[in-house]
Amino acid sequence: MSVPTLLVLDADPPPRLGSLTGRARILHTDGAGLAERLPVADVLLVWDFTLTAVRDAWPGEGPRPRWVHTASAGVDHLMCPELAVSDTVVTNARGVFDQPIAEYVAALVLTMAKDLPRTLELQREGVWRHRESQRVTGTRACVVGSGPIGRAIVSTLKALGITTALVGRRSRTGIHGPDDLDRLMARADWVIAAAPLTADTHGMFDARRFGMMQPSARFINIGRGQLVVEDALVEAVSKRWIAGAALDVFDTEPLPPDSPLWQVPGLIVSPHMSGDTVGWRDELGTQFLQLYDRWEAGRSLPNVVDKQRGYVPGH
Amino acid sequence: MSVPTLLVLDADPPPRLGSLTGRARILHTDGAGLAERLPVADVLLVWDFTLTAVRDAWPGEGPRPRWVHTASAGVDHLMCPELAVSDTVVTNARGVFDQPIAEYVAALVLTMAKDLPRTLELQREGVWRHRESQRVTGTRACVVGSGPIGRAIVSTLKALGITTALVGRRSRTGIHGPDDLDRLMARADWVIAAAPLTADTHGMFDARRFGMMQPSARFINIGRGQLVVEDALVEAVSKRWIAGAALDVFDTEPLPPDSPLWQVPGLIVSPHMSGDTVGWRDELGTQFLQLYDRWEAGRSLPNVVDKQRGYVPGH
Repeated sequence: MSVPTLLVLDADPPPRLGSLTGRARILHTDGAGLAERLPVADVLLVWDFTLTAVRDAWPGEGPRPRWVHTASAGVDHLMCPELAVSDTVVTNARGVFDQPIAEYVAALVLTMAKDLPRTLELQREGVWRHRESQRVTGTRACVVGSGPIGRAIVSTLKALGITTALVGRRSRTGIHGPDDLDRLMARADWVIAAAPLTADTHGMFDARRFGMMQPSARFINIGRGQLVVEDALVEAVSKRWIAGAALDVFDTEPLPPDSPLWQVPGLIVSPHMSGDTVGWRDELGTQFLQLYDRWEAGRSLPNVVDKQRGYVPGH
Repeated sequence: MSVPTLLVLDADPPPRLGSLTGRARILHTDGAGLAERLPVADVLLVWDFTLTAVRDAWPGEGPRPRWVHTASAGVDHLMCPELAVSDTVVTNARGVFDQPIAEYVAALVLTMAKDLPRTLELQREGVWRHRESQRVTGTRACVVGSGPIGRAIVSTLKALGITTALVGRRSRTGIHGPDDLDRLMARADWVIAAAPLTADTHGMFDARRFGMMQPSARFINIGRGQLVVEDALVEAVSKRWIAGAALDVFDTEPLPPDSPLWQVPGLIVSPHMSGDTVGWRDELGTQFLQLYDRWEAGRSLPNVVDKQRGYVPGH
């Protein structure tokens, strides 16, 4: 019996795949070569999730892998209607990024509350200027996205004494439905976007919603860039409709050098790194191997994405 | 019966003292006028704790206030042998700064773990450069100073999943004695100075101790500048014996414009602001009034400083 063919979408080989020696024929491809190799693959590992090649190549001719795993929480970069209606199972890296991203959000919240960016500017200028800063205990956060990342953010912010509200696709115990979003955003000190990118969430943070926020409130996006109407956010921050924002994800990544987003006072720009703590690639590799063990044994896979919804449904 | 004379050491009147109308004769003084006015004061409120005028004026001639309250946690700026042996009661602002400073320390820990200062630099240059950052969960902190501020720091860091050790003047349940300090510092990822400035703690963080820390570890001082041998810290950070540091307090404050501390890569300098969140002056004023009510009624005061030790003894 021939071993399965594992196609890896990435120039760099992922760590830990050596242990599949004899258990898989491993092919590597970049985006340009994907369409040609897709028909021979039993399994596709989307290691470089910045590539949208799957979306483009999938609708082509020939057989398709039975299983696609992406080393990311979001699946927006690979989903297309043909994949969605197919029998192919799609799994994601659920779990790996939760705690790191929650810490990153806490770092941004505290950094903004304590005015650290201004402190660093003043330090560069050699200027001693005492300011009052904000206490985060007792402030209110609205976290949008009720998956494991959103829930980890809630836990971490709660531990800091912040009152949190979690908003998901539908209302259930401990989670608000979309109908509550406007009301919650209007009274939040922190609005945190942690939702998957789907047709429902695309552009959900727009001029109307930024206009509802308090002038003292701040917006953080660690989900996907397209959740946000970037021009509207630039206007809201520039005109001080809100007190500040931090974006780790963008409509176009890398953020182009000429993007106005780099230079907005009160807006922190980071290069899509919120979940990427030391050892993350190893963890992603280990997670894929655990799934591969199960797949090889014919057992059911965890982290299976609902391809219509575009994420792993919760409980 | 004449009302007591309350002498306030500060150019600006503290908030909320208006409610003492008819209950106290309020005099204001700057440092230069203190010696002259001290003999007529029943109570001295040290509102501007950056002034060391009390230390200088106290040993002079004439009667002395029966009660001195300082709107600060530390009393190092006012203590002198003559005050220490006198019958005058000294109280401090115990409690007001605990939670704000704990949040500030958490902000610094997370900022350094997530490499946010570098992110802000890269943003200024318009450069998208992904880096791996550090997870704080599972790291180890050694908090030096077992008063309410040190204990609040421990609680907040624990809430972030950080393993903490608290070091005090003597070993007791949940608190390590000084003998454990070297061992704890040697294995800590974060060393946090939150001790009062006393003869015992002066210069305790010196070249030897920085040399014991791990190269990946970072040092934070929110206590008093003189806890640290600043030249030794500059060398430790500059030569990468440790990974970084953040100082909110300094031997000389304001930090002089020509101080080398401003320009050390990996060293964050902030202007003694860790505890000063919006409303802090109001809180300090309210706290003093609460103490004044008790003093006026002849009741015992809380927050009484052990003048020999230089802080309010714990339980």
